[in-house]
Amino acid sequence: MVAPSTTARKAERIRLGMVGGGEGAFIGAVHRIAARLDDQYVLLAGALSSTPEKARRSGRALGLDEDRIYDDHEAMARAESQRADGIEAVVIVTPNHVHAPVARAFLEAGIHVICDKPVTVRSEDARQLAELARRRGLIFAVTHNYSAYPMVRMARELVRQGRLGDIRVVQVEYAQDWLTEPVERSGEHKQAAWRTDPAKAGGGAIGDIGSHAWHLADYVSGLALEQVCAELSSCVPGRGIDDNVQVMMRYAGGARGSLWASQVAPGHLNDLRLRVFGSQGGLEWRQEHPNQLRYTPLGQPTQLLERAGAGFLHAGQRLNRLPGGHPEGYLEAFASLYADVAAHLVQARAGGLPADPDSHFPTIDDGLRGVQFIEAVQHSARQGGQWVPLPATA
Amino acid sequence: MVAPSTTARKAERIRLGMVGGGEGAFIGAVHRIAARLDDQYVLLAGALSSTPEKARRSGRALGLDEDRIYDDHEAMARAESQRADGIEAVVIVTPNHVHAPVARAFLEAGIHVICDKPVTVRSEDARQLAELARRRGLIFAVTHNYSAYPMVRMARELVRQGRLGDIRVVQVEYAQDWLTEPVERSGEHKQAAWRTDPAKAGGGAIGDIGSHAWHLADYVSGLALEQVCAELSSCVPGRGIDDNVQVMMRYAGGARGSLWASQVAPGHLNDLRLRVFGSQGGLEWRQEHPNQLRYTPLGQPTQLLERAGAGFLHAGQRLNRLPGGHPEGYLEAFASLYADVAAHLVQARAGGLPADPDSHFPTIDDGLRGVQFIEAVQHSARQGGQWVPLPATA
Amino acid sequence: MVAPSTTARKAERIRLGMVGGGEGAFIGAVHRIAARLDDQYVLLAGALSSTPEKARRSGRALGLDEDRIYDDHEAMARAESQRADGIEAVVIVTPNHVHAPVARAFLEAGIHVICDKPVTVRSEDARQLAELARRRGLIFAVTHNYSAYPMVRMARELVRQGRLGDIRVVQVEYAQDWLTEPVERSGEHKQAAWRTDPAKAGGGAIGDIGSHAWHLADYVSGLALEQVCAELSSCVPGRGIDDNVQVMMRYAGGARGSLWASQVAPGHLNDLRLRVFGSQGGLEWRQEHPNQLRYTPLGQPTQLLERAGAGFLHAGQRLNRLPGGHPEGYLEAFASLYADVAAHLVQARAGGLPADPDSHFPTIDDGLRGVQFIEAVQHSARQGGQWVPLPATA
Amino acid sequence: MVAPSTTARKAERIRLGMVGGGEGAFIGAVHRIAARLDDQYVLLAGALSSTPEKARRSGRALGLDEDRIYDDHEAMARAESQRADGIEAVVIVTPNHVHAPVARAFLEAGIHVICDKPVTVRSEDARQLAELARRRGLIFAVTHNYSAYPMVRMARELVRQGRLGDIRVVQVEYAQDWLTEPVERSGEHKQAAWRTDPAKAGGGAIGDIGSHAWHLADYVSGLALEQVCAELSSCVPGRGIDDNVQVMMRYAGGARGSLWASQVAPGHLNDLRLRVFGSQGGLEWRQEHPNQLRYTPLGQPTQLLERAGAGFLHAGQRLNRLPGGHPEGYLEAFASLYADVAAHLVQARAGGLPADPDSHFPTIDDGLRGVQFIEAVQHSARQGGQWVPLPATA
Repeated sequence: MVAPSTTARKAERIRLGMVGGGEGAFIGAVHRIAARLDDQYVLLAGALSSTPEKARRSGRALGLDEDRIYDDHEAMARAESQRADGIEAVVIVTPNHVHAPVARAFLEAGIHVICDKPVTVRSEDARQLAELARRRGLIFAVTHNYSAYPMVRMARELVRQGRLGDIRVVQVEYAQDWLTEPVERSGEHKQAAWRTDPAKAGGGAIGDIGSHAWHLADYVSGLALEQVCAELSSCVPGRGIDDNVQVMMRYAGGARGSLWASQVAPGHLNDLRLRVFGSQGGLEWRQEHPNQLRYTPLGQPTQLLERAGAGFLHAGQRLNRLPGGHPEGYLEAFASLYADVAAHLVQARAGGLPADPDSHFPTIDDGLRGVQFIEAVQHSARQGGQWVPLPATA
Repeated sequence: MVAPSTTARKAERIRLGMVGGGEGAFIGAVHRIAARLDDQYVLLAGALSSTPEKARRSGRALGLDEDRIYDDHEAMARAESQRADGIEAVVIVTPNHVHAPVARAFLEAGIHVICDKPVTVRSEDARQLAELARRRGLIFAVTHNYSAYPMVRMARELVRQGRLGDIRVVQVEYAQDWLTEPVERSGEHKQAAWRTDPAKAGGGAIGDIGSHAWHLADYVSGLALEQVCAELSSCVPGRGIDDNVQVMMRYAGGARGSLWASQVAPGHLNDLRLRVFGSQGGLEWRQEHPNQLRYTPLGQPTQLLERAGAGFLHAGQRLNRLPGGHPEGYLEAFASLYADVAAHLVQARAGGLPADPDSHFPTIDDGLRGVQFIEAVQHSARQGGQWVPLPATA
Repeated sequence: MVAPSTTARKAERIRLGMVGGGEGAFIGAVHRIAARLDDQYVLLAGALSSTPEKARRSGRALGLDEDRIYDDHEAMARAESQRADGIEAVVIVTPNHVHAPVARAFLEAGIHVICDKPVTVRSEDARQLAELARRRGLIFAVTHNYSAYPMVRMARELVRQGRLGDIRVVQVEYAQDWLTEPVERSGEHKQAAWRTDPAKAGGGAIGDIGSHAWHLADYVSGLALEQVCAELSSCVPGRGIDDNVQVMMRYAGGARGSLWASQVAPGHLNDLRLRVFGSQGGLEWRQEHPNQLRYTPLGQPTQLLERAGAGFLHAGQRLNRLPGGHPEGYLEAFASLYADVAAHLVQARAGGLPADPDSHFPTIDDGLRGVQFIEAVQHSARQGGQWVPLPATA
Repeated sequence: MVAPSTTARKAERIRLGMVGGGEGAFIGAVHRIAARLDDQYVLLAGALSSTPEKARRSGRALGLDEDRIYDDHEAMARAESQRADGIEAVVIVTPNHVHAPVARAFLEAGIHVICDKPVTVRSEDARQLAELARRRGLIFAVTHNYSAYPMVRMARELVRQGRLGDIRVVQVEYAQDWLTEPVERSGEHKQAAWRTDPAKAGGGAIGDIGSHAWHLADYVSGLALEQVCAELSSCVPGRGIDDNVQVMMRYAGGARGSLWASQVAPGHLNDLRLRVFGSQGGLEWRQEHPNQLRYTPLGQPTQLLERAGAGFLHAGQRLNRLPGGHPEGYLEAFASLYADVAAHLVQARAGGLPADPDSHFPTIDDGLRGVQFIEAVQHSARQGGQWVPLPATA
């Protein structure tokens, strides 16, 4: 078993800061556990809330030194960039519309970025961030975390090895039920409030979970998405943002896809599923049972592949912590993404020492394409369902 | 347990004929078992093949009397309508393009019709058949057999009772893998040959299985389908007909739907699945495991409903033959459809005696709407994906 | 697809009688459907109840001729054996304690027997029946129906081909929940009443379902059972018969097994499951989802084998009626057992024409061993859990 | 969501040492991640291997200070007990036969113990440790980690609330396949070598996994186990220790149980499953899919309970980190056990401040009973399968 934790030595743990993610924020805590799990990062600074007292309270609860608890991200970027022991990378877990200015500030201060998705509300912002990161030679990771599940990595490797033949059909979906009722109006549900506010979220189901589904399909299939035809709906009366998304997709080379994302599907919690079919086989993966992967070589029985079981490929093995049958989950996958980012951050420190060639993670380029996907879907839907092209990839 | 077989007394078994379904035909044998299972029909006549020797050989193998083995359906309709012991109903299981002329001949001879789907290749033919059946006061059943699974009946009842609230989202799919390779060109696969011939089938995946998926969604949701936006693909190079279908659907009242039908999905055999979501709950059913139904009342745990288990509703109970946990399957559902048709045929004999009010089956009206659905999908796809309206229902 | 129905020509349908199975009896109706499904039998005579009016009413409902509706089985055996068109075989579906005298009467009248299980209450009776059948050269089938599921046949073939290596461990269980409460005391539950009456049933859970579990393990593993160590419990206070059974088993050659049968397991309906493990692989089958078989070749991924799917072996194919993914169920398996018996009955008629060599079914020898198993379990349990040997097989 | 991590403030992280768990040891790494995940512990000292160079290399890899890397546990216990900043608790992850002397040394040095299971090879040693811990007022946790899965806690709460009525039947099993072949003889499999050495392990499958199955059943059912009747087998020729275990169990009050543990079951990885049935309902849990729990209230449909889903009870909620549908796994459960131990360690520091009353974990008393269970099973098996009583619990 390759332990992801062995890449960085303890003495060399990466110095990390965080913007957003204070008290009561779900995703901030997830990022912190993910960074801690393999012991390759140490959290040293934070601007954890836009409310000063809350920022301070949150920082203390996390054991940050007083002088590294900041009220705003600009001060933090400035101060940390000038310390000898300043942070090397910042984690951005604010509401979506704040990602861009925060990322810009840290990039300009020479600090690597790990940012939640969708990386920006407008693709133009993402494009500029991509350019800035490139110019400054900085790492910009986007946490499309589902791509770091071992069996997702393995699914991608099966496709890349040609085990499915030419890919023809991609079916992806992400179904939840937490917005079946208008909980955003209750005043008690902070998550629901900003996630259903178009100004802050930049999109409803399409941005929050549709973008994850898009990335998973993109990542595993390796196909270039060319056109989308979409329908966005607000199923809950009075909700000003989409809570159900249907997209038909045309890929380069003729493959076709369907994407469904819904937050109004009672009985589904975080039900992200992917199926990919080619001329030589098919596969299926479901995040709610992530340690299994169904793989059907054409003309043969379906195989129930298990993480760390028979037939487990290298792509998954290197993210593996436990023997097969001992379930790994969401936090381990998130930690594996952090471990892969760590490998590159350590390389960056060393000024060129090559990272594990199999180590990779979604970057600002993926983030940019994700926002372009969201915009194309929104454009198609606004036009009442026209096929809309996506910008060509470089 | 209500035995579907108790409706008709043995002495009163319905006299049945069959057109098509001779040697080597899959669906003919299925219809015969379905008709026999509950002992309410007796097969007495047939024009089982368009090849005379094969028709004769097939008829003898089934034990038909020599004088009731016919070479063509017109002779059969004529002769049977003049016998005192002539058939009361005919089963039509020919390739799709032959359904219309055969059905017309029997209707004009005053004989009830049980016809496979899609009922015709062109909706105009179906419309005329509907009118003819109505004028003659004859029963015209269309074998959308999946609607007779007990748990499908129960799913519909849950929707009708309002247990899901207002329906918002319908996801339906039918995935197969038998056409992943161009088996129709092998010369050995009769099914594949006519089912991929546009002239004989009237449609590929959309007609063969998409129409089943459409009907299942229609039947359970009870929603009026208003518009479709579709993409038809031929994934196998050189195949002149669709083998992969994507459809977005708009229903009256604002509900949205997606339909996916594919014959090129390795790992899927006859994987028909339906999910329906409303403001108060959701449900899921899958034909490959038909004795279970998942039902999630909003805010409560998902229930795994079992045929003949706790909470089993009347709509399913009346089709039930076995205690829960003893699986019923495809043939039993098909037989239940025949049992419901039998109840109406017996009623027709009695000239008005009311059938079990809960007894129902898909008719030529459903068949007509099915063909209209296929045509709308084909129209939308030909236009490169426009939203296309369906004709209003009467 | 090999249709089990093609073995016998219609004109040659086997003339069948039935003892027991009148109004309200579950298993009688099952046998009739099973016999009818492939159109190889015709039911012509019956002594369907020990209550004369009920016997008559039941016979009429099934369309029997008045003179072939009998009040008692002895009269029936006598009369039918003297008719030119008399029945060739009798189906015995009475309560268990009546099996033996009925079977004896028909065997002595020269009529083949198809009998429900456990074939007798005492093994001595079964031994005598076996001898009588052998002496008279008559077929005596025992309806251990689960052995006729296609995937069970295939499981056995995998074992026989050595695909699992040397068998080491057998785990079998049959769990139900219908006797969780003392329904037998309600006066309304006929099934529960006789099945929990030691005099009529000869055993509780051990006889009713434990014997099925035993046979399934015996049939698939092919191992000779040598010793049992058992615990029989009555979990419902006041119930005078076992409703929960635990058995440890020692097989010839060193394999070990566990059997659990329970009628007080809420959440389980007819949950018969078998797992077999050997030095080269393992397999798992579950009757509630009978069209799948899990097979794990050692060191390879688990394969999800599907009836009529890739890798489907001959042993299952010959019982197959439908394409893969269209579920077959309990009635089809039961009908396949009848089809295999039919092949032998037709052979018996022809006086030696060999039946399909792959055609087989459980006989009185299996029935005898089943009763010996029950007796050994009861003996072990009465002794407070001693290892008890089974009689050696011939 | 209650974050288990909030119990201890960062400044107050518990000072931890470890004995065993150096390079290549699976379970040592698991304990370290578990301790780190919620940020309540800091690892400061270790005697990580019995081989000095390996101990040193392992300690350095973990970033321990040079003077706190020890060659043997006695030196470590002595030195650490005399430091002002000495460890508060030690984790013991050596082979089983070394647990007792190590634990004794640390207890005598006044240091709390967290020890792997089975806690000792002989119950007498466990009894003495229990007494020693009690006398010294020290915490002694035993890592029966499966009991800290949220859905296991919830299962126990369902039983305690009487939702299953009187418990009647317990079925528990733990199946693996990693010892199907004699890998212990390959010389390359360190785990296999000591785990199949009777002197070091104290038992084969019964000690390694049977003891986990026993504890799970014990923990959830809350029943007192009175007698066992067992069969231990070595399925692999030449293996000197059991690799397959069958146990029948009698509980106080009349409930019956079966336990099966196997390391030679191809297709099973770490397949620990528990089913509990009572007069009012049943439940089922499986560690390979730990976020779900099946619960069947008698006469109602089976409920598929989800971690953090509808109906999630307090007992599980307090261990919860993620929204429902985002799978938690083995490491999170292990971390939750550590979090519960932490709550008590913090309390111990404060000299009496009461811990969260819902916080609990398996102690040396559970460990002792576990070893008594193993001994009773071995005793019964040696006697060829006699019912053997367990010592009465205090």
